[in-house]
Amino acid sequence: MAGQRTLLTIAGSDSSGGAGIQADLRTFTALGNYGTSAMTALTAQNTTGVQAIHGVPPEFIEQQIHSVLDDLDVHAIKTGMLFDAENTKATVRALKTHYSARAMPPLVCDPVCVSTSGHTLLAPEALEVMMNELFPLTTLITPNKQEAELLLSVTITSLEDMVDAGRALLAHAPRAVLLKGGHLTATLADLNRLPPDVRVVRDGLYGENMEILAANAPRPENIVVDVLCEANGSTTVLARPRIDSTSTHGTGCTLSAALTCALAGGATVLDAALSATAYTHLGIQTAVKLGAGHGPLNHLHSVAQMSVPPPTLGNSYPLTRLLMSGNAALWKEYVEHDFVQQLGRGVLPRASFVHFIKQDYHYLKYYARACGLLAAKSDSFPQIASATQTITNVLREIATHRTFCAEFGVSAEELERTKESAATTAYGCYLMDIGLQGDTTKLLMALFACLLGYGEVGLWLKNSATDRGFVLEDNPYRRWIDDYSGPLYQTAVRIGIETIEARAVADPPSPARLAEWQAVWDRCTRLEKGFWSMALEVTGNN
Amino acid sequence: MAGQRTLLTIAGSDSSGGAGIQADLRTFTALGNYGTSAMTALTAQNTTGVQAIHGVPPEFIEQQIHSVLDDLDVHAIKTGMLFDAENTKATVRALKTHYSARAMPPLVCDPVCVSTSGHTLLAPEALEVMMNELFPLTTLITPNKQEAELLLSVTITSLEDMVDAGRALLAHAPRAVLLKGGHLTATLADLNRLPPDVRVVRDGLYGENMEILAANAPRPENIVVDVLCEANGSTTVLARPRIDSTSTHGTGCTLSAALTCALAGGATVLDAALSATAYTHLGIQTAVKLGAGHGPLNHLHSVAQMSVPPPTLGNSYPLTRLLMSGNAALWKEYVEHDFVQQLGRGVLPRASFVHFIKQDYHYLKYYARACGLLAAKSDSFPQIASATQTITNVLREIATHRTFCAEFGVSAEELERTKESAATTAYGCYLMDIGLQGDTTKLLMALFACLLGYGEVGLWLKNSATDRGFVLEDNPYRRWIDDYSGPLYQTAVRIGIETIEARAVADPPSPARLAEWQAVWDRCTRLEKGFWSMALEVTGNN
Repeated sequence: MAGQRTLLTIAGSDSSGGAGIQADLRTFTALGNYGTSAMTALTAQNTTGVQAIHGVPPEFIEQQIHSVLDDLDVHAIKTGMLFDAENTKATVRALKTHYSARAMPPLVCDPVCVSTSGHTLLAPEALEVMMNELFPLTTLITPNKQEAELLLSVTITSLEDMVDAGRALLAHAPRAVLLKGGHLTATLADLNRLPPDVRVVRDGLYGENMEILAANAPRPENIVVDVLCEANGSTTVLARPRIDSTSTHGTGCTLSAALTCALAGGATVLDAALSATAYTHLGIQTAVKLGAGHGPLNHLHSVAQMSVPPPTLGNSYPLTRLLMSGNAALWKEYVEHDFVQQLGRGVLPRASFVHFIKQDYHYLKYYARACGLLAAKSDSFPQIASATQTITNVLREIATHRTFCAEFGVSAEELERTKESAATTAYGCYLMDIGLQGDTTKLLMALFACLLGYGEVGLWLKNSATDRGFVLEDNPYRRWIDDYSGPLYQTAVRIGIETIEARAVADPPSPARLAEWQAVWDRCTRLEKGFWSMALEVTGNN
Repeated sequence: MAGQRTLLTIAGSDSSGGAGIQADLRTFTALGNYGTSAMTALTAQNTTGVQAIHGVPPEFIEQQIHSVLDDLDVHAIKTGMLFDAENTKATVRALKTHYSARAMPPLVCDPVCVSTSGHTLLAPEALEVMMNELFPLTTLITPNKQEAELLLSVTITSLEDMVDAGRALLAHAPRAVLLKGGHLTATLADLNRLPPDVRVVRDGLYGENMEILAANAPRPENIVVDVLCEANGSTTVLARPRIDSTSTHGTGCTLSAALTCALAGGATVLDAALSATAYTHLGIQTAVKLGAGHGPLNHLHSVAQMSVPPPTLGNSYPLTRLLMSGNAALWKEYVEHDFVQQLGRGVLPRASFVHFIKQDYHYLKYYARACGLLAAKSDSFPQIASATQTITNVLREIATHRTFCAEFGVSAEELERTKESAATTAYGCYLMDIGLQGDTTKLLMALFACLLGYGEVGLWLKNSATDRGFVLEDNPYRRWIDDYSGPLYQTAVRIGIETIEARAVADPPSPARLAEWQAVWDRCTRLEKGFWSMALEVTGNN
């Protein structure tokens, strides 16, 4: 929500959702903004046409605008269908009242006169009110060909006519005019005939040094153009390949809503026109046909569903939680493994424990090497330092292992001489392989499944030990339990959790990438389980 | 748009956007669905309260519902504020008419009676109509404590009362009741006192084998519960930590809208309740205060802005295009480098060309090795095959280099003996380093900047050669130009482009990841430029 700007649309409602305030609000949302609205008229419509209109009383329009502006700090405003002269006047009155003493934010006026399906959406007598009272307040107006013809009483049949009309409209909308050419077809030749004082921006028409892209893409026959005329005298033609589609219901609403978003964000009118026309164009291109007539655009091409929720007070570690609960049964089998339970009750055969410690000693060599690989793959000193710290921790951990072994009558020489079991090789080499295959985050997933797992096992044995039937006093493995539940190891666990959580925030994974992480996590959990099982098998105590 | 389901909300409008159809449509959008709406009443309101209400005529409500349902295939419906008895009857009439002969999709009824700010939103006489005529049609009703008290004429003061009320409401809404407990505070002890036939789901309250997470997170004092009672007799209590927030305007609308999304997607009522309450809860938790009173939730926590647009007919290669135009000036300096221009005009000193070919020969050894590394990092046979194919292509390319050298009087032995220049080492080792550091996609970016760059240079020299002042006839470097603009190399270029585009679609990069790719691309472009410059410097012709 941080960064969301508050926008206001003053327009009609389209029950079918493709146009009107519905298209505005959907565009605002898709572009990451917060939308408010004042309804001027309700329509009962669908993709085939407008079945009925219910005008909203002018004083109620004013009341809606005041309710919004009195309470919220609005960063940009757009107007759409204003219905009739009285409602247009009410809109102007409310805006003028509110912004009598302070600067009005950017205002975009889409002079909606006729729907895509041909239904009249503005009473003829309202046209003059809009031109004389509303246009002077605007940052930008966005008429289509038909509306420009109505406003100027001219006929537009060519690209040159459009440029002339756009410039003529500046007499009424003094800051900028974006004349939409969706109802006119041009060619590349038309573009080349434009006078030199008209700038041409080609979008979806490959530019300089993009011949390898053009070579593999179809060359567009027909071009659609929008013309932007600004008060400073500059004229820009935005050209794109024409799309053959019936999904054009609400194109004008979407464009003016996207313009409003860009202007609220501080964009220049030209940059706003570039991004908003591109957004709208993509909306038509990626639409799936809906309804029997002119269906809506796809407004959601600009957003993706997040695969990891944001961290919050109640869920500080959403990624770790997802990984742990991704295969909760497997995770539980690992944490509550028979080996762990026997260790907790102090009845684990010494031979199993010694075998485990010896193999863990070998495993930790892989682990330290994998951290070395992590350091080699890191591209910042803090990351290198963190990987090195983990190696230092491991070196301390193996000192503990040597002490354990001495206590259990295993010499340092015997420890070194012990042959590596297949379970150890499998897990150790898997770490190295992930380190070779993927990026540092993927390697961290493999390393932290082990780090976090032992932390969880440590707490599971220590917390509510009595309730769980575990003994701490006189448990021969007490030291092992204390080590993994103790502050030193648990601090490393916390840092590990915070590291992967920070990665997921800085570089949110796609669903595919999260699935990859989950696969690594689950694989490590299975390998950990195999490690416990190996230790039990050595005494046939499984 | 593929995968978007069409939903209908029949509810009131909230000018301030936090509740009503605005909250519904925002929720539908954020959860990836397409929303339609039938307006029952307009409110002029903001975060401090409701300033005015304009009821919509009942026949116009029916018309809106018919316009939507006659044209669009609606996957789920929700009702919110119905305003009065006539409008409630109109809603029921329209739904019954439309679904007289066919099955109604899931219907969620949020029995909105009173606003968060205390404003009555449903005329008292409408309550009975809603209970007797609308409830029987529903999949689920979602009253809050106050509404349940009104509907049942009871007082609810405890978690046990909530369970009783939820079960009692099943007499009216025969399929399922989700009784919202936002206005009631419970404790963990209350949860533990619930009878065994009540299932408790704890969300944001860490579960089994998550002690390392719980150890580092605050333990919630107060709990908020929602109670789901289903026709099959099952009762589920959904418990979460209570959030201390004023951003609760539109909570009920958001919840019922999220339920509608989940049910439209085929979820069970229980799964829908779990995901919708989680979505709403996160909306409150991640909200930023807006307005002077009860502000809206953050509906956008579930979505992220895409950093690469989807491929379309007019823009088939959006990622490659972004990379090329990310630093267009640098890309142009590389493609149109003096070395290339002199080569195109046939005036490049032979010594420069020979030096270039000799160094490129060494560089290609790195390139082949980097492809070997790519094969080693790949986790599928097609990926391994593709990396191997590139090595095969490189081996063919070096055969050409040997032939060139022979033509220019350089023996194979001299070619092998040539010392590697720093520019070659820099570029070659950079490829190996990226291969060590990152995942396969990052390595592909490094490999393809070179592949695509030579493809672009080849076409730039060949296409419109005369216009650009290049000569092909009698050009001593004709063979080089033909090779890189020819079908064999250009096919490899096309495959390269399609490979990285497919990666961006399968695993859409976050902005941070795209920035990393762009950095690799730009770095390679600079190293390529350095390679040309090195060749010119050898003859002092730069």
